[in-house]
Amino acid sequence: MATESGYDREAVRAVLDRARSEGRSALTAPEGKALAEAYGIPIPGEALATSADEAVSLAVELGLPVVAKIVSPEILHKTDAGGVEVGLSSAEEVKAAYQRIVDNARAYDPKATIEGVQVQQMVGGGQEVLIGATTDPTFGKVVVFGLGGVLVEVLKDVSFRLAPVSAEEARAQIGDIKAAEVLTGVRGSEPVDTDRLADVITRLSDLVTDFPEISEADLNPVFASGSGSVAADLRFVLDFDPAQPPKRFTTEEILASMNRIFKPRSIAVIGASNEQGKIGNSVMRNIVDGGYAGQVYPINPKADEVYGRTSYSTIADAPDGIDVAIFTIPAKFVPAALEEAGRRGVAGAILIPSGFAETGEQDLQDEVLAIARRHGVRLLGPNIYGYYYTPEHLSATFCTPYDVAGGTALTSQSGGIGMAILGYSRSTSTGVSAIVGVGNKADIDEDDLLTFFGQDDNTNAIAMHLEDLKDGRAFVQAAREVVPRKPVVVLKAGRTSAGARAAGSHTGALAGDDKVYDDILRQAGVVRAPGLNELLEYGRALPVLPTPAGENVVIITGAGGSGVLLSDAVVDNGLSLMEIPPDLDESFRAFIPPFGAAGNPVDITGGEPPSTYEKTIRLGLEDPRVHALILGYWHTIVTPPMVFAELVADVVGQARAAGIDKPVVASLSGDTEVEAASAHLFKHGVVAYPYTTEKPVQVLGAKYRWARSAGLL
Amino acid sequence: MATESGYDREAVRAVLDRARSEGRSALTAPEGKALAEAYGIPIPGEALATSADEAVSLAVELGLPVVAKIVSPEILHKTDAGGVEVGLSSAEEVKAAYQRIVDNARAYDPKATIEGVQVQQMVGGGQEVLIGATTDPTFGKVVVFGLGGVLVEVLKDVSFRLAPVSAEEARAQIGDIKAAEVLTGVRGSEPVDTDRLADVITRLSDLVTDFPEISEADLNPVFASGSGSVAADLRFVLDFDPAQPPKRFTTEEILASMNRIFKPRSIAVIGASNEQGKIGNSVMRNIVDGGYAGQVYPINPKADEVYGRTSYSTIADAPDGIDVAIFTIPAKFVPAALEEAGRRGVAGAILIPSGFAETGEQDLQDEVLAIARRHGVRLLGPNIYGYYYTPEHLSATFCTPYDVAGGTALTSQSGGIGMAILGYSRSTSTGVSAIVGVGNKADIDEDDLLTFFGQDDNTNAIAMHLEDLKDGRAFVQAAREVVPRKPVVVLKAGRTSAGARAAGSHTGALAGDDKVYDDILRQAGVVRAPGLNELLEYGRALPVLPTPAGENVVIITGAGGSGVLLSDAVVDNGLSLMEIPPDLDESFRAFIPPFGAAGNPVDITGGEPPSTYEKTIRLGLEDPRVHALILGYWHTIVTPPMVFAELVADVVGQARAAGIDKPVVASLSGDTEVEAASAHLFKHGVVAYPYTTEKPVQVLGAKYRWARSAGLL
Repeated sequence: MATESGYDREAVRAVLDRARSEGRSALTAPEGKALAEAYGIPIPGEALATSADEAVSLAVELGLPVVAKIVSPEILHKTDAGGVEVGLSSAEEVKAAYQRIVDNARAYDPKATIEGVQVQQMVGGGQEVLIGATTDPTFGKVVVFGLGGVLVEVLKDVSFRLAPVSAEEARAQIGDIKAAEVLTGVRGSEPVDTDRLADVITRLSDLVTDFPEISEADLNPVFASGSGSVAADLRFVLDFDPAQPPKRFTTEEILASMNRIFKPRSIAVIGASNEQGKIGNSVMRNIVDGGYAGQVYPINPKADEVYGRTSYSTIADAPDGIDVAIFTIPAKFVPAALEEAGRRGVAGAILIPSGFAETGEQDLQDEVLAIARRHGVRLLGPNIYGYYYTPEHLSATFCTPYDVAGGTALTSQSGGIGMAILGYSRSTSTGVSAIVGVGNKADIDEDDLLTFFGQDDNTNAIAMHLEDLKDGRAFVQAAREVVPRKPVVVLKAGRTSAGARAAGSHTGALAGDDKVYDDILRQAGVVRAPGLNELLEYGRALPVLPTPAGENVVIITGAGGSGVLLSDAVVDNGLSLMEIPPDLDESFRAFIPPFGAAGNPVDITGGEPPSTYEKTIRLGLEDPRVHALILGYWHTIVTPPMVFAELVADVVGQARAAGIDKPVVASLSGDTEVEAASAHLFKHGVVAYPYTTEKPVQVLGAKYRWARSAGLL
Repeated sequence: MATESGYDREAVRAVLDRARSEGRSALTAPEGKALAEAYGIPIPGEALATSADEAVSLAVELGLPVVAKIVSPEILHKTDAGGVEVGLSSAEEVKAAYQRIVDNARAYDPKATIEGVQVQQMVGGGQEVLIGATTDPTFGKVVVFGLGGVLVEVLKDVSFRLAPVSAEEARAQIGDIKAAEVLTGVRGSEPVDTDRLADVITRLSDLVTDFPEISEADLNPVFASGSGSVAADLRFVLDFDPAQPPKRFTTEEILASMNRIFKPRSIAVIGASNEQGKIGNSVMRNIVDGGYAGQVYPINPKADEVYGRTSYSTIADAPDGIDVAIFTIPAKFVPAALEEAGRRGVAGAILIPSGFAETGEQDLQDEVLAIARRHGVRLLGPNIYGYYYTPEHLSATFCTPYDVAGGTALTSQSGGIGMAILGYSRSTSTGVSAIVGVGNKADIDEDDLLTFFGQDDNTNAIAMHLEDLKDGRAFVQAAREVVPRKPVVVLKAGRTSAGARAAGSHTGALAGDDKVYDDILRQAGVVRAPGLNELLEYGRALPVLPTPAGENVVIITGAGGSGVLLSDAVVDNGLSLMEIPPDLDESFRAFIPPFGAAGNPVDITGGEPPSTYEKTIRLGLEDPRVHALILGYWHTIVTPPMVFAELVADVVGQARAAGIDKPVVASLSGDTEVEAASAHLFKHGVVAYPYTTEKPVQVLGAKYRWARSAGLL
């Protein structure tokens, strides 16, 4: 019976229940057909023949030519069993094929139940594509789309989306494959009706979403043409005992805990120590020296005082109002201490020690998590360096304090990467709201942190290093919430098979197929950093750059050679060089020498005084048709680096004061003074780098990718 | 008549002469067939019919089915003219088709000469591929290979090689396309005989090389199968008046000039000035202050002395022994002064001034070149910053002196990029042999410089920024000579269409199709830098790294998280993580904690003392099965950055002293002290970077790419 959505869920339920009762993990072709019909997935006309004569009369009824296929619950790979014949175009051929198929099947598997032979309209023409669904360990149900055929199999040109997909998402998924142009009708072939093709993807995605026990589905081939898309073959695999996703908290629950963890009234340091070199000593010192304004209670039964603060034997003896307990004791002592902290009602336990799942002690980690759950305590870690939150002057870490406050929140799954974040931030004076280590992620995961940073007014951009996601679906949901408000950058380590193997030996994380991650993170609007350096750079620069209001990018350069490289970088980063309208071109030309080149890049040529840079940049800023500027500077005696930097900072500052807030990035070519000039520009809101034409454009590209995902363009 | 190579050159000559005498720029199908037969390119059986009856009897003779095609010198696009019918499988069909084809052709072009209809065996089966040849403006004759069909057209999956190609090169060209796996027989299809397919490429490449007037050739489709490859359709385009390549010098001539230019006995500065801010002043000062040991003669009729040296009115008055004249006078005065310099027998004229082709003054540039040729003077520039050659303490430039001597020679077509080279080199203390601006390249081109640096003992690696090549073939020839001895790195600007457009407005250079550049530069063994920063970094690091003796790369890391990212980078850069043999794995395990991970990466874990780094690195260096090491360092209190850097420098130094010279690169994650630690490592021959896991591996990858090209692996 069809429901209001047009889907006949009861029919599917009946098929699946029967399979379950029979202990089967696969469906027969007629069962698959029933599922397709129930969800409106177009399939060729077909019927089951239980004799050669019946096959002939069905073939005539459906229309010749036909395809004949064995129907047996035990035979999944029908072709291997000699159970498929195609192009049967006469009654005699159908009759003979029926007999051969049944004989082949018996020879292939004498124990197989042979229910008959399916006679199917022969479809073809149009473009062969495949549509599938699978159950990803990280993301759950995902749908896949690709062209059919040998070539695409070799080139692995497919695209993934999280199920269910809307019609719009399915169209984007179709357009996402490299060979998508084939579907638009090249060399005079008929264009595919992509709306109808997208509809098949949507329907399959709904089917696997409504019935999670369908662990895999393959529609392959689907013949897609201008008049529709027909799934010529279907395959369904079932799993009635799927893995359960980790516990999920509501947004309110997450925020209640996270607000207390990042803005604690007071903090207990369990294992605080006076002994230099001990983690419990470093953490105490860093919290106090970092300038945290709340109370810090050392917990150490062997000391009266630690770093000038009264020490307590257990957290039970400490004063009220403790929101966070930081554990700096060996792993084996954590359960008992966490039990006590839980009884005191802390919101967060920061588990710095290692010696849990990463060294094979999964049971200990599970025990600790169970204690935390019982008390409603959220765990950060274990196996982490701790966390920083600059708005509260909080450096709860054994590293060193960090106090350059700003808009970027950074997280890392690995301690080594955390140290790179800290060093790089310090070296470049990156304004940071938070740096957080998540380590083994026994509990708090990137989605919890995204949820917090998403609503945190101190955070303008979020940059995350991760090797896996415990709950990819929760992450995507959190990202979708946050992306419209601020950029989310992700460095996914373990992109390659070698990297994933390394991740496996590191945290026991199962690094998923990178293409799945890539497509689904993009679908969620996440900006992916290709490497560590880009994660750090995007994190540093994205909050500095204003959001562009449109796609028109203009390059203004003093060095033609930089203009060429900057143009290459524009294309590499998916940006569009504005086609400069004649009147604007005329205006640029008025400022530059006759042998300079207007157009885009605007090449003002090398020997120009500061005023030429100034006038052309001002023009680019003030013309409302221009949305972003890329500057190429060439060190000359006439316009030295710091003169350029100061004039650009001034012009951009004046424009911003007048309400014109466009992203401006700069590449500085010159002697070493360009380093200080770049730093000056960065400080004044112009993302500038020396000795590279790629990086400024790459950062602008990341800003654009985010702005498009956020729906701001 | 067939020659000793099996090619019948006379037959081709006859066909081409006839076409030339008839003023044609295309060949008819029978003429194309004659060319293919003369060069042993397999084609289907075919013959020309001049009546419908003849077509029928030919079809029966060749064997049905057949294809029929119009033969008319005026009709090139036969399908558009309705001049092709395929799958004609009976006498009646052939007869009717003949008439339709002739009628269609008459309707299409009433003036066309119709010579008849070609009747051809219908071929098919196997894999459809295309083989072509074209005349590239930069490289001359190039051959192209790709799969046929719509999908490949959309994906543009083709590969190029410089003609002529050897059988080995042709096989590599076939293997170079992304979808090459299709030819190996996927999903049970018959593998293609790639030797026979390569043979067709070789033959076509010989044909267009022997007959340069064949400007284009298309064999499309070629049906390639296990039993051979047959070209089903041929198309040839002729150009009897091709563009001439620029003048070429012999290696001896080039070296004679270049040795005098880079190691001049004395130098004249034409336009030398006492006035601060003038180019003629800066150049004088830089040569003198840079420490050049030869004589420097200022040429300035208005001064008695410039920067403490006696000035001369003209170069004619200056003493003997002048090898180089540096021009710092306005463009319009260059011809007369060059005439005089030529008469004094200078080897090189360094033309710093702009105002030549780049500002539209092509005639002036041509005039200057003609003067130079007349006197046997080689020109550098015009429109350049000059050049540096540190072994002679020579800073012949208006920038600033540079004196950090080392093995890298850098060249740039753009002044802006030259300034970036200078600043970056100074900032990173890159050891440089030369920095050269080539500007408009009126004369001296990258191939001249490659030839010099290739045999220059002061140069170990060559890094070139270029926007075009005046003579791509000469460059490839020079690169092939040099690459076996030292790495050649090229940053080709104008890779993208936008970049190429920008290059067009910059120097009037026609930036070629990047795929052609990419394939042919790789064929020549050149390492391509994807961007400016990589050009600088490869230039800096390649001479520092020893050449690996094999492909076995091992990662040793203190941070598991870095290990994952380093593994990703290994795959990205075409390197191979060694499968560690059990005995070596056992040896590593003896040094690392039980919860560390051996295998590859070797994860020694975070809290380890210096001795663990030391022992594992020493093991990696001393085991002869390991060929290169990638180190991941994690900043801890136990092993601070400089302790790590010093121990690594020591261990590597000891190994080198013992004759073990393996490339070692390092990624340092930590607080800002890792910057000094990285610099220390670099100074001691370990290529190390802070805050990035990608760059050290990228540099190692570049070294490997070169070593493979040089035939050293």
